[in-house]
Amino acid sequence: MDIIEDVLCFGGRQLRVKHTSESCHCDMVFSVFLPPQAEQGKVPVVWWLSGLTCNDQNFVTKAGAQRVAAELGVAIVAPDTSPRGDGVADDPDGAWDFGLGAGFYVNATQAPYDRHYRMYDYVQAELPALLAKRFPLDIERQSIMGHSMGGHGALTLALRHPDQYRSVSAFAPICVPSQVSWGQKAFGGYFGGDESLWLEHDAVALIEKSGFDKPILVDQGAADSFLQNQLKPELLEQACERAGVALTLNQREGYDHSYFFIASFIEEHFRYHGRFLSR
Amino acid sequence: MDIIEDVLCFGGRQLRVKHTSESCHCDMVFSVFLPPQAEQGKVPVVWWLSGLTCNDQNFVTKAGAQRVAAELGVAIVAPDTSPRGDGVADDPDGAWDFGLGAGFYVNATQAPYDRHYRMYDYVQAELPALLAKRFPLDIERQSIMGHSMGGHGALTLALRHPDQYRSVSAFAPICVPSQVSWGQKAFGGYFGGDESLWLEHDAVALIEKSGFDKPILVDQGAADSFLQNQLKPELLEQACERAGVALTLNQREGYDHSYFFIASFIEEHFRYHGRFLSR
Repeated sequence: MDIIEDVLCFGGRQLRVKHTSESCHCDMVFSVFLPPQAEQGKVPVVWWLSGLTCNDQNFVTKAGAQRVAAELGVAIVAPDTSPRGDGVADDPDGAWDFGLGAGFYVNATQAPYDRHYRMYDYVQAELPALLAKRFPLDIERQSIMGHSMGGHGALTLALRHPDQYRSVSAFAPICVPSQVSWGQKAFGGYFGGDESLWLEHDAVALIEKSGFDKPILVDQGAADSFLQNQLKPELLEQACERAGVALTLNQREGYDHSYFFIASFIEEHFRYHGRFLSR
Repeated sequence: MDIIEDVLCFGGRQLRVKHTSESCHCDMVFSVFLPPQAEQGKVPVVWWLSGLTCNDQNFVTKAGAQRVAAELGVAIVAPDTSPRGDGVADDPDGAWDFGLGAGFYVNATQAPYDRHYRMYDYVQAELPALLAKRFPLDIERQSIMGHSMGGHGALTLALRHPDQYRSVSAFAPICVPSQVSWGQKAFGGYFGGDESLWLEHDAVALIEKSGFDKPILVDQGAADSFLQNQLKPELLEQACERAGVALTLNQREGYDHSYFFIASFIEEHFRYHGRFLSR
């Protein structure tokens, strides 16, 4: 494990770490922010999962979350969004919505993606174990959040591992990947035609069958150009209502899909997670 | 004048604007943040001048300043750092510290730079006039700040136009460009050997002769790798002491030259300017 960047930020340390991933069979880079409180003892962890085309740096440089994380005493871990490197298969046409930068937080079953594209295991199991060993993190206190494809990742991981994540939130998540073109392309490529696998990674389908009993916080920009065709929060809302899940869906008039939207409301999300993580 | 981006951020509007500059004889792009208060009437302006290699976007996407600007009701204008475009001469070797991205906020007198490299006139005169005409800005209330090369720009503009800028601050400014290699390369290229021109754009030299009677706020990271060879805040400190200028020089232990440093202390700088701009 190599620390390739270590910069002071709001009194904490913003690190960038390179390591060889056993899940993804390649070198991976992730970012972790350690708040000042990590000098005194273990701190809880908020996971941030990024969207299509991002890597571990977008959130770290653009969201401004370190300020409130330093105040609350929580760490932030931002993984990459896909395996990378010379041996890693990309979309055959180099598209931005599949392959590199578009791992969709699943374990692929289809060649040539099945060897490296194992972001689900990487984020849910490998990274927490590595982090607990190497950093002053209290891995018993994790919360998870993300944006767009990463909002899908946060919701599906939380729904499938309710004991691992104390709370979950998302900005503009892909709520029903099996019913929209981004998700259909990804799941078709990573899983092939096996629809049962698709539904295991579809937040709306999981809510309908899971008995999830935690609240969910979602912020959605009303001027987001992907709202109608790719995100579909109304289907998440209907599923939560049917399943009795307490969803807070903040519709933000005039906001788009960008990090300017995320930055505007990130403090509220951190304070939300902070309440679950402090106990 | 074309608005090429218009995004909601902390209740205000983050704009990117393209226009043809009369000073620089080329198309230029600048960013302006209008706080929510600009919907009700004119708001004061804080100028942000960026450092070497930057354009109008670095500060806008990385510093997180819109939050406090929205609270205080001040606009932020972030110009580019040099003229750009096909006809604009660059460093002959394509170096990052001269030419494109390195205009040093001066009016060049030497060919081939003298036609386009007129960032001084552009920032001090052309842009304020344009902004006053097109946006709800109270151009009688301006403050100025910047980082590194832009810290040099902010200091020298404020020292030469004390009636224009109510307050001035800088992060890790190049305090004595005529005595360090970045500044010597830039001034040699833009001005040639005429040392009197060099000293008109050297903050320490200006302080010693100017009779400037406002306070100056500077934050400097103590772990900044450019501190000793390029920035030299100790010479600014000595000059201010000799001239009776009230300098607040915050040495920030462990901080480097990056936007993580700027983001950590930007709120303090905005609150500082806000006090001068509210009256």
